[in-house]
Amino acid sequence: MTLQAIQWENGQVKIIEQTLLPEKLSYRFITDHQELIVAIKRLEVRGAPAIGIAGAYGVVLGVQHLDNQTSRAEFFQKLDQVVAELKQARPTAVNLFWALEQMQLAAHVNPLEETEQIQARLLNTALQIHAADRQACEQIGKHGAELIRSGMTILTHCNAGALATGGIGTALGVIYTAVNAGKKVRVFADETRPLWQGARLTAWELSQAGIDVTLICDNMAAFLMQQQKIDLILVGADRIAQNGDTANKIGTYNLAVLAREHEIPIYVAAPWSTFDARLPDGKAIPIEERSGDEITVCFGKQIAPAQVRTYNPAFDITPGGLIHGFITERGIIHPPFKADF
Amino acid sequence: MTLQAIQWENGQVKIIEQTLLPEKLSYRFITDHQELIVAIKRLEVRGAPAIGIAGAYGVVLGVQHLDNQTSRAEFFQKLDQVVAELKQARPTAVNLFWALEQMQLAAHVNPLEETEQIQARLLNTALQIHAADRQACEQIGKHGAELIRSGMTILTHCNAGALATGGIGTALGVIYTAVNAGKKVRVFADETRPLWQGARLTAWELSQAGIDVTLICDNMAAFLMQQQKIDLILVGADRIAQNGDTANKIGTYNLAVLAREHEIPIYVAAPWSTFDARLPDGKAIPIEERSGDEITVCFGKQIAPAQVRTYNPAFDITPGGLIHGFITERGIIHPPFKADF
Repeated sequence: MTLQAIQWENGQVKIIEQTLLPEKLSYRFITDHQELIVAIKRLEVRGAPAIGIAGAYGVVLGVQHLDNQTSRAEFFQKLDQVVAELKQARPTAVNLFWALEQMQLAAHVNPLEETEQIQARLLNTALQIHAADRQACEQIGKHGAELIRSGMTILTHCNAGALATGGIGTALGVIYTAVNAGKKVRVFADETRPLWQGARLTAWELSQAGIDVTLICDNMAAFLMQQQKIDLILVGADRIAQNGDTANKIGTYNLAVLAREHEIPIYVAAPWSTFDARLPDGKAIPIEERSGDEITVCFGKQIAPAQVRTYNPAFDITPGGLIHGFITERGIIHPPFKADF
Repeated sequence: MTLQAIQWENGQVKIIEQTLLPEKLSYRFITDHQELIVAIKRLEVRGAPAIGIAGAYGVVLGVQHLDNQTSRAEFFQKLDQVVAELKQARPTAVNLFWALEQMQLAAHVNPLEETEQIQARLLNTALQIHAADRQACEQIGKHGAELIRSGMTILTHCNAGALATGGIGTALGVIYTAVNAGKKVRVFADETRPLWQGARLTAWELSQAGIDVTLICDNMAAFLMQQQKIDLILVGADRIAQNGDTANKIGTYNLAVLAREHEIPIYVAAPWSTFDARLPDGKAIPIEERSGDEITVCFGKQIAPAQVRTYNPAFDITPGGLIHGFITERGIIHPPFKADF
């Protein structure tokens, strides 16, 4: 797997411009944290773990022009401002806030350090966050692959693959690992309206990896399940509360209800940076509402009446009780989750 | 309601070119049954009742160039051929087969008739089928409106409105009738992938009628229900078996499962031409599978890898047991259905 959604190269963040996929695999260098925020808002960088990594690198970008002439007070004022701005990029995935907190902690480790030393530690921390996510994906893949028997057909939603993480992906990482172990797997990918992460990203990513993938519209999953064509559902997550309530791409809750109706196991695959140990349940998870244009305009074409009212939540909350298990880097776990699971 | 999806005018079928909505409300005259078949296949004319009416007019078009020089044998050979060709237009909605059967019966009423007399009876029968559907919509509206309390929020899927019938619509006819009776109603419309009947047609049709409509993606309905924002689900149907198993636009079964989970009533609104009294259950209803391009190409834009495998069933089957009731021109009824309900 050589696909890397996000990289640190020569003092810059290098991202795949995911909005151009599958037409074009093109990379862009970002040198400025404001530009990175725009890229996150526009979903050029997306996927909860990848947003976390991007946020960490964003902190590095935001303070890297400062030098030892800068007072500690000035430095931390700037740092706080950069972190506050990055926090506004997207509200639901907790990985961003987790990563920004790690960066803040790293910056404050040693009160005697000068700007360049803090900058070095910040870069090092960001690289570690990235490396840890890569390792987490490997382990999630390993643990999750144990659920998969050869011949299984797996349904997935949105994109929880290499394009969404710092490694091989979470839900798709499980599939890659199973396939690499010689298991035969067939995948159905929900197209994932309104932003087509399934059609544009998952179908492309799995095809590139030579995996048997069939694209469907989101509203077709129930019919497939009714026909007993689905053995397992694997999805990623944007935020998981103590009781297992899970925020993930809109449509996930729908799949979880269908999964129970058809007695199909549904697993969430996510690294521990996705677990929000402060939240007892999903009620307090903020659900991002995005512009109605994402629904009414399709690649520049107005498909619905221009003035029609819309409702466009980007995520939904699946009750923990509907989820069979959580595939993490430390194994498959079940709620309640504590801070140190 | 002046919107008429299909009309008979000066020996021609006049249709709204529904593939051009909502951008443009344009009409097209069709003079030939082959051209009508293409229009049905392309969904320029769509909706089970409207397809039935179109099929009836198609028979008229197919034999109207014949004259009294034609022998009865020749006439019926041609008629059988036209009917056989029309039958191939789309396989799921039973209204087409029902209407073609009515036309065949009408043609054979009097063995002494000459071509022009048979042609006159065929036209008359087609006009009656159309008028009966218009009346059926009115009655469906009247019966269904009794289910609606002022202040209700209703979810609908696909388009079961004036654009799908010979009258004010089935599911949407209920809404129009309730609103005309002074009830306050809010509607959520599923966009209905892959062909956007909700976004292009229902959102437009309801907006035109001044009804409060909010467009959502299909995968958002579950989240709305979880938030208790939906009081009632109304859909149309393409074919209903004796036990209530209902073929309707793909995604309907999904809604029915969600409806039960959230204890929301779901009703099917359909005229009796949609009931297939020959089928004990839904197992034998043929489900049309359409081209994968409908999923991978969006208004000319390739959105998924060109070579990706797809699965594109146009309909699904909802078990009768999940449906609260069937709103017909003769009242709200429940299975088992007999031929003469």
